[in-house]
Amino acid sequence: MTVTHGTLAAGGGQLGARTLRTAVVGAGFMGWVHAESARRAGGRVVGVTSGKPGKAADAVAAAAAAVGADRGYPDLESMLADAAIDVLHVCTPNSSHAEIAGKALAAGVHVVCEKPLATDVADAATLVTAAAGAGRVAAVPFVYRFHPMVREMRARLAAGQAGIVSTVIGGYLQDWLAGSADRDWRVDPALGGPSRAFADIGSHWCDLFEFVSGDRIARLSAQTVVVRDRGGSGESNEDLATVQFATASGVVGVLVVSQVAAGRKNRLHLEVSGTDASFGFDQEDPERLWVGAREGNRVLMRDPDTLSPGAARYTRLPAGHAQGYQDCFDAFVADTHSAIRGEDLVDGLPTFADGLRAVRITDAVLRSAASGGAWTEVPA
Amino acid sequence: MTVTHGTLAAGGGQLGARTLRTAVVGAGFMGWVHAESARRAGGRVVGVTSGKPGKAADAVAAAAAAVGADRGYPDLESMLADAAIDVLHVCTPNSSHAEIAGKALAAGVHVVCEKPLATDVADAATLVTAAAGAGRVAAVPFVYRFHPMVREMRARLAAGQAGIVSTVIGGYLQDWLAGSADRDWRVDPALGGPSRAFADIGSHWCDLFEFVSGDRIARLSAQTVVVRDRGGSGESNEDLATVQFATASGVVGVLVVSQVAAGRKNRLHLEVSGTDASFGFDQEDPERLWVGAREGNRVLMRDPDTLSPGAARYTRLPAGHAQGYQDCFDAFVADTHSAIRGEDLVDGLPTFADGLRAVRITDAVLRSAASGGAWTEVPA
Amino acid sequence: MTVTHGTLAAGGGQLGARTLRTAVVGAGFMGWVHAESARRAGGRVVGVTSGKPGKAADAVAAAAAAVGADRGYPDLESMLADAAIDVLHVCTPNSSHAEIAGKALAAGVHVVCEKPLATDVADAATLVTAAAGAGRVAAVPFVYRFHPMVREMRARLAAGQAGIVSTVIGGYLQDWLAGSADRDWRVDPALGGPSRAFADIGSHWCDLFEFVSGDRIARLSAQTVVVRDRGGSGESNEDLATVQFATASGVVGVLVVSQVAAGRKNRLHLEVSGTDASFGFDQEDPERLWVGAREGNRVLMRDPDTLSPGAARYTRLPAGHAQGYQDCFDAFVADTHSAIRGEDLVDGLPTFADGLRAVRITDAVLRSAASGGAWTEVPA
Amino acid sequence: MTVTHGTLAAGGGQLGARTLRTAVVGAGFMGWVHAESARRAGGRVVGVTSGKPGKAADAVAAAAAAVGADRGYPDLESMLADAAIDVLHVCTPNSSHAEIAGKALAAGVHVVCEKPLATDVADAATLVTAAAGAGRVAAVPFVYRFHPMVREMRARLAAGQAGIVSTVIGGYLQDWLAGSADRDWRVDPALGGPSRAFADIGSHWCDLFEFVSGDRIARLSAQTVVVRDRGGSGESNEDLATVQFATASGVVGVLVVSQVAAGRKNRLHLEVSGTDASFGFDQEDPERLWVGAREGNRVLMRDPDTLSPGAARYTRLPAGHAQGYQDCFDAFVADTHSAIRGEDLVDGLPTFADGLRAVRITDAVLRSAASGGAWTEVPA
Repeated sequence: MTVTHGTLAAGGGQLGARTLRTAVVGAGFMGWVHAESARRAGGRVVGVTSGKPGKAADAVAAAAAAVGADRGYPDLESMLADAAIDVLHVCTPNSSHAEIAGKALAAGVHVVCEKPLATDVADAATLVTAAAGAGRVAAVPFVYRFHPMVREMRARLAAGQAGIVSTVIGGYLQDWLAGSADRDWRVDPALGGPSRAFADIGSHWCDLFEFVSGDRIARLSAQTVVVRDRGGSGESNEDLATVQFATASGVVGVLVVSQVAAGRKNRLHLEVSGTDASFGFDQEDPERLWVGAREGNRVLMRDPDTLSPGAARYTRLPAGHAQGYQDCFDAFVADTHSAIRGEDLVDGLPTFADGLRAVRITDAVLRSAASGGAWTEVPA
Repeated sequence: MTVTHGTLAAGGGQLGARTLRTAVVGAGFMGWVHAESARRAGGRVVGVTSGKPGKAADAVAAAAAAVGADRGYPDLESMLADAAIDVLHVCTPNSSHAEIAGKALAAGVHVVCEKPLATDVADAATLVTAAAGAGRVAAVPFVYRFHPMVREMRARLAAGQAGIVSTVIGGYLQDWLAGSADRDWRVDPALGGPSRAFADIGSHWCDLFEFVSGDRIARLSAQTVVVRDRGGSGESNEDLATVQFATASGVVGVLVVSQVAAGRKNRLHLEVSGTDASFGFDQEDPERLWVGAREGNRVLMRDPDTLSPGAARYTRLPAGHAQGYQDCFDAFVADTHSAIRGEDLVDGLPTFADGLRAVRITDAVLRSAASGGAWTEVPA
Repeated sequence: MTVTHGTLAAGGGQLGARTLRTAVVGAGFMGWVHAESARRAGGRVVGVTSGKPGKAADAVAAAAAAVGADRGYPDLESMLADAAIDVLHVCTPNSSHAEIAGKALAAGVHVVCEKPLATDVADAATLVTAAAGAGRVAAVPFVYRFHPMVREMRARLAAGQAGIVSTVIGGYLQDWLAGSADRDWRVDPALGGPSRAFADIGSHWCDLFEFVSGDRIARLSAQTVVVRDRGGSGESNEDLATVQFATASGVVGVLVVSQVAAGRKNRLHLEVSGTDASFGFDQEDPERLWVGAREGNRVLMRDPDTLSPGAARYTRLPAGHAQGYQDCFDAFVADTHSAIRGEDLVDGLPTFADGLRAVRITDAVLRSAASGGAWTEVPA
Repeated sequence: MTVTHGTLAAGGGQLGARTLRTAVVGAGFMGWVHAESARRAGGRVVGVTSGKPGKAADAVAAAAAAVGADRGYPDLESMLADAAIDVLHVCTPNSSHAEIAGKALAAGVHVVCEKPLATDVADAATLVTAAAGAGRVAAVPFVYRFHPMVREMRARLAAGQAGIVSTVIGGYLQDWLAGSADRDWRVDPALGGPSRAFADIGSHWCDLFEFVSGDRIARLSAQTVVVRDRGGSGESNEDLATVQFATASGVVGVLVVSQVAAGRKNRLHLEVSGTDASFGFDQEDPERLWVGAREGNRVLMRDPDTLSPGAARYTRLPAGHAQGYQDCFDAFVADTHSAIRGEDLVDGLPTFADGLRAVRITDAVLRSAASGGAWTEVPA
């Protein structure tokens, strides 16, 4: 590789920084992703436990192996009691998030909790209160915020480059549940919660839109559809949702969220149109930002030489050598660790308050859809 | 050019076919486009009159020169009386469409009328009745139907290739009215009608969606916004609209229409997602059709060797030599002439019934927006 | 359509201009394309004859019908004698171009001759001399020059926007002869000439490059390959060629021309890199121009509001309504007619001198390839 | 993130595997990248020394901090003597590679050496012999081989999907030296070697082409240009090169390499055309593979569910969550460690033999260019 620039963001952990003792609940793929990012941030993964307590000894050992932890524990309580944990990552099915995160906060541990933070508003609000009361850092991995071109879009919108922002077109489309035989624990409301497509991926879109725009979805009307009958413990949660909304500042927009859209894998797409400039971002092509203007459109590549400071902060490689999803995740965890150490002014870290916000929007979507698409206020 | 295929659609008029005597009302740019397509279809442009009667002699001559007509007339009545017209093209501001088209039908003349067919539902419905009563061909230039890749999308949806159609994302974005100083007669409700962005371009999108899907927008909820205060005879009609809808067959979707979206010129975009395949078309890139599937996505180019018959019919050039907007317009007028001569089975010609349909949807959008986005039924 | 701009180029023939009497030799698809463009330019297609003299009466009539001519003739001589022709379009197989064009010039007729102008340098040079001696307009349809974004690229290069022009990457790739069973008259050297891929499409690329750059290919080294044994009257001419070259001003570049490259239809691609800006054009996507710069890349759409005058001249439709190949061809013929009438200052009309230039480059390519890729000077 | 697939490649180090003691020479950005990948592969970075021996104590400590090593050393010799190194990564300026790698091999240490392996053929060949004699793993980071879509292209070419491979179009374009004031140690032949653009990035392209095609560049003709006078210890090495070549199996192709092409950052592009299918890869968009065919073109996204096994091996994330450059580098180092441990059958690891190959091609390019582009054989 040709290194062309001397200004790349420092990667990895801060030298001399205190090593954070990290633990994980949930030994699946996301458990490994969290653990790996913790290591890359300079942390040590001291323990792991499965989301289901009481595992046999070999299962405990397998969990430790799966995420690369120093040791496995049979349950959360024994891990909290024994491992001298600084920060706990919650990577279990949705319905257990609130209880686990609550216990960790009660034990004085910082928490990173997978989204959705909880499967209902009350639980999420309780966690926000608990985190504030405990004075702990409590973060939710809305990691798309850490794509440098997302930060660039945010910086340009904040600078007023769009002129009058007028419309928003959004989508988050996947196809991994398009087949009639596709199954997953998320499909079962008892594990995944009352919302699936929206809670799982729609929440990402809403967080990203509100993050880049600095605006808030104030009222919305929604439709949800179950395309496939998938069995499970009750009626399936939604395969897709469409939403129309207005923001606090009067911008209008639409959003389609689907897990049954053939050909799309993780197409989180966002086009914000203004009278002077428009901006488009697609998570499947995260190294570029489309900037529209009457006199000609630009496709900006991530380039440390030309990005605004808020975007350059998350640039680790020269232009033209792609950063990816893992880089976002690493940056999120690194910022979380910085916040825990109190050593760095971190901008844009997604917290439990943001997690609550996503749950509130999801709740409004479900309520609107249940009442025939009635316009529904989203509490601030 | 290398001609690679022997199966290209015949262009131009049918040899030996009767030459249709064509006349035009409205001597602006669209008048010229209609006249030129009529000539290319083998017609003769025998007369033109301005939309504003009583012009002086030199203005009459200028109109004839502008569209290439044999002669100009001071008003519609004298032209209808004198020119032995087969078909009249109405290319005047929206508010005059209904009266002019009505007079032509009453005179026994076939009519091509620019959209919107009328500025309210009653007038449009009256014209449909009049056309049926007169037994005349009455067409509306929803010309995007004539892009070959639109026909390909339609053929594939009709064949069920999408599996379960689940969601629709649509947009028609322009930026030519984004500036604070931008003006046009369409902005004035007295000339353009109560709806601008939606009547002018949203109607195109709705026609295209219903055409390719064979489905109908059954109910909708809409928001409209006036971004710019533009003066004029009254309050400005809308700069943009967002719409959420459900179709007769239960498909849900969203649409954003705007004339103030910087960087977009005529981005009519349509993505129909299904469980087996998804399809995407963008009018700014009309030679391609995106076909998504779980096992890999394709970008089909217009290619006479591989298109379905309904699409190959409108293919005039070998693959890789772009057809464009004018080719669509020519094909629309050629099909209209064929229908007038009764010599050809024309599939998919947009008629006054389609024009009425667009006015009905526009009316529903305005009514919904006026009542806070209330869900509104669209009469079939 | 929404017409947004008052500055669109006038289409069609000049009002009041003398109607040019046009005739065509060759009643195939290209004959029709030429005839149609002549009509659109305000000409009258008074006669046609097949490239093979002595046709029976019904074949003569069929030729007239195929191109829409007033009448058919059994041979060129009778047509020249009878039809009072202003301009003759030569649309026959390559090996007959020189003789037919020569006879027309001798008869005092203006000529449009398909490329390659001739199948050897001497014949092409003779035609250039003949045209000059006769004082007739003599044009070759290098029609890609008439894409507005090609003119834009040319204007920007002429203005020095590229800084130091350093490299050129070019290609013209097709796949219509990729199959083992694919046949065409061009494959037979007796009809198509000693070069096929390069003479047919490589010549287009070279003309376009020299046109936009104002530079000249001074020396080259080439390889040619026959991939398929296709039978015919002798050894097949080349399926593909690769070329490395240097220009008169010291720019270096490469070019690949192929008719056996699966997936490419008419991918004429050209990327000119400079130290300040780079430019890329792709004939399969002709409404856009890629402009690269260190601080960010742009994708310019054809837009009458923002183009340079030389490009705006060929813009007939608003931005976002695609122009295509036929629009180029129409513009080329319209400019040719203007030149014939002497009424307009036409810039960039490709003449027999340009046709000779392409034959010279083709000849250099064949000679280099025959001598193992030896560096070969291209006479100016 | 939604994890959709159970078959993702295991990331990180093998559990229970022996921890490799890694050391680095060169404490710049690339030193950090190597060290980080070693850590991610489960290694321990035990030492680092600057490329310039005899550094003061604080410089030694700074080097250790910069790459995250246990300690710094004043010179290579003391580090080799003290640190019990398993594998040494050479990340110094080009002219010192051969000496450092040679010393490491002589000390019985495995080596990863940045490209170019050496600045002349003799030195590179000596290293290949030394590595073989020592029985050590000796690798060169041609890391683009580790993009999953590169592996997919290779698997499909190996399976014969292209039909007859006919042409290759290649490029590696950057712009970081386009400005008149741009400087770097690579510009100075005393440090960078006699070739710059080609040795630095052209070598990457050649390695990638030969890797995916299984073919060899047999003879070539080249031009090199110095666009900018940059001062330095002697005449500047080349800013750009163009190459025409033929392979051992008779495929012909072209290549442009430039570090002064405005708008391109790391555009390593490769299009291999065949009669049945063509393949295109662009390193700036590494998650996609273009597959052309006459019946329609596809854009394959990296998707663990649909890739061939050789590509799926390097897939760590679900489709639609981008992998990037760092993932390639990590995979390269992980495979190197596997090879060192002898525990895994590694396919496609780039070795010193591949490094020598690149130096030979570079040498042929320089010799050809020096002799006016004479065709030059590349020794196998």
